[in-house]
Amino acid sequence: MKPYRDMTPEERQHEYAAVKAHYDELKSLNLKLDMSRGKPGRDQLDKVSDILTVLTRDDCLTADGDMRNYGVLAGAPAAQRLWADILGCRPEEVFVGGNASLQLMYDLIAKAWSFGLLHSEKPWCREEGLKWLCPAPGYDRHFAITELFGIEMITVKMTPEGPDMDAVEELIKDPKVKGMWTVPKYSNPDGIIYSDEVIRRIANMKPAAPDFALMWDNAYVIHEFDGDYVPFPDIISLCREAGNPDMVYEFASTSKVTLPGAGISCMAASVDNQKYLQKLIGVQVISYDKVNQMRHVKYLQNKEHALEIMKRHAEVLKPHFDAVLKALEAEIRPAGIGHWETPKGGYFISLYTLPGLAKRTVALTKEAGVILTGAGATFPYGKDPEDSNIRIAPSLPPTAELEQAIEVLCTALKLAALEQLNA
Amino acid sequence: MKPYRDMTPEERQHEYAAVKAHYDELKSLNLKLDMSRGKPGRDQLDKVSDILTVLTRDDCLTADGDMRNYGVLAGAPAAQRLWADILGCRPEEVFVGGNASLQLMYDLIAKAWSFGLLHSEKPWCREEGLKWLCPAPGYDRHFAITELFGIEMITVKMTPEGPDMDAVEELIKDPKVKGMWTVPKYSNPDGIIYSDEVIRRIANMKPAAPDFALMWDNAYVIHEFDGDYVPFPDIISLCREAGNPDMVYEFASTSKVTLPGAGISCMAASVDNQKYLQKLIGVQVISYDKVNQMRHVKYLQNKEHALEIMKRHAEVLKPHFDAVLKALEAEIRPAGIGHWETPKGGYFISLYTLPGLAKRTVALTKEAGVILTGAGATFPYGKDPEDSNIRIAPSLPPTAELEQAIEVLCTALKLAALEQLNA
Repeated sequence: MKPYRDMTPEERQHEYAAVKAHYDELKSLNLKLDMSRGKPGRDQLDKVSDILTVLTRDDCLTADGDMRNYGVLAGAPAAQRLWADILGCRPEEVFVGGNASLQLMYDLIAKAWSFGLLHSEKPWCREEGLKWLCPAPGYDRHFAITELFGIEMITVKMTPEGPDMDAVEELIKDPKVKGMWTVPKYSNPDGIIYSDEVIRRIANMKPAAPDFALMWDNAYVIHEFDGDYVPFPDIISLCREAGNPDMVYEFASTSKVTLPGAGISCMAASVDNQKYLQKLIGVQVISYDKVNQMRHVKYLQNKEHALEIMKRHAEVLKPHFDAVLKALEAEIRPAGIGHWETPKGGYFISLYTLPGLAKRTVALTKEAGVILTGAGATFPYGKDPEDSNIRIAPSLPPTAELEQAIEVLCTALKLAALEQLNA
Repeated sequence: MKPYRDMTPEERQHEYAAVKAHYDELKSLNLKLDMSRGKPGRDQLDKVSDILTVLTRDDCLTADGDMRNYGVLAGAPAAQRLWADILGCRPEEVFVGGNASLQLMYDLIAKAWSFGLLHSEKPWCREEGLKWLCPAPGYDRHFAITELFGIEMITVKMTPEGPDMDAVEELIKDPKVKGMWTVPKYSNPDGIIYSDEVIRRIANMKPAAPDFALMWDNAYVIHEFDGDYVPFPDIISLCREAGNPDMVYEFASTSKVTLPGAGISCMAASVDNQKYLQKLIGVQVISYDKVNQMRHVKYLQNKEHALEIMKRHAEVLKPHFDAVLKALEAEIRPAGIGHWETPKGGYFISLYTLPGLAKRTVALTKEAGVILTGAGATFPYGKDPEDSNIRIAPSLPPTAELEQAIEVLCTALKLAALEQLNA
């Protein structure tokens, strides 16, 4: 096959007829497949469901007290230590949350909105025209939070090294810019790792807003599925060393380590931030679920053992990613109608089609029974300026179904490209 | 012994000397006891710790889907049904939360603050001078939430039947009055049950504020420790029948059914409220911990079986309450320096001293090594106008320690009363 743009009109008509016939054939299978979200598959869940019964009464009676009872706002100390080990920060910098780091992120912004952060002059709801930096493509649930609070989102270009830091350093001179979303390791959706240089520049930012919040969503901190664990710097100490100790809030969870939505989460931040925030959090909750925290401490033990458990996931995940990448290599690369990174961790493959094809491709894919993340979802306000990015989540469907789903996607993209070129 | 106020000055001097000597003796024991919070004791926790290992993988694979994975914002449908059974409402009126109903209450007010409720004209943070009704004595953690948001709290007198409804019906004519806290069954701290007539009047309130929020904290819905379960009406249907379907938000949790801070919670509300709120909640969290919800469904099964489990708690709790009541009867009643209700459920005994004695009593008690809930804590802004109410939480200390603790309290109260009378 040669690249579509190099084909003659006749060749393209011929290719179109072939692709269309194949598409119709796939459509007639009445598939019902879902590649829309980064949900682990059942095989993965089965490999960690032994967590359900590991915890006994005696495990809860710790030197720090009876973890079955009320109290200990910041979480079970053993869970603070576990997170500190995984993230590379200090236990006293860790607040252990409930089943969702998303909730901790939402709550941080909600508290800034209602009460302000440590260095705020007033609650954010008393300020006008707030803005937020959104490296994109990024995580749609991040963007949904800032959108809900009516904070204007500014798209920052993602590079293979991380956010375009020239742009960021310029934009943060505006005191109305109150924060930035990041997924620094195996970023959602590109799957890239921010380079040391980008991280250094982030830690050294000098935002005009005294209460600028760097939202460091380290969702995939130990989530390699291809190869060994890749060491990653501790942003809390980097910001401290850069004289920005209170600028950063780091989030993580075990949602893709043990069971999604039934794990534990954390927010790491400077001790001063912890003091300020825990005073507010203490009005909201007595503590998050310390029994589930202890269950995770017993099951994961420490970073080293958590990495062992992550290998169980990798074993299932790698063939899923391989199937997608293989199909893209075979079908899309030769046609010259898309490009992508090859991630070694995380949950997504980020496919960039030729401009103007993403929406049509997702629609055609849906018509043939395969649900993808909505085109544009990876951009603020759901608006991809190039209409190019498609987030592929290969984890949920079993391999056989996944192969069908990706075949549908590739065929749909080819069809969309040919429609455009023939128009 | 005769009532202190009937004693001659000489008799009182004599009594003072005796009480003081006894107090000093107790003080010299260097006790370290805590009756400050409604924390279950270790015996109670041991009786329900078999919940830790009941849930297996297969229990999570339900007709409603795999509860180990992401999704189902409103919670595991089986948990919705369990709560509906316990509360007497409909499953679709139930949102199942995480480990703390307090968090759901905080979040409701936080969402009203940032975005408004279903019938709000604007977010509460865009209004001035908001007010809130606080039947008192009440729950300090409730008051802490409204205080944090800067909502002016108006104390409403509690009667043995519930809040003074004449006062409430007058106060809600003010459109600035946005809501009311209640603990309708075994109210914290008085331990009384709102009468049918009070409940009827509450359900039929016609507040001027279109977005008035009746916070119905049904914390002790199945929490009898003395005698059988006392049926209690479903406030959701009562409000609906009264033409106030969207006025009420009901909260409950299993914190004192299974393990405190490791249970499940719920918010019951009209289907329209659920629709409105879940759209907001969906930005904050994908769902609360459905695995823990399934664990509770398996363990509690239904209301009837949950009531069986509550008998295990009652068995431990009743002797604790009896010890306190016996001491109060023996020491305080004859001196004529306090009165109290005799609760049959809940976690507290609410002791009313003669005016002006609560603070001094709690201070003297503390000095002798026994921590009580701070005097005044049961009133908005921590200000008990009579300085009279002391909340006693008998559940945590083992019986032997409890007997010492209550002896300290009685002695301290007698000392405080004699100081006042002799002054």
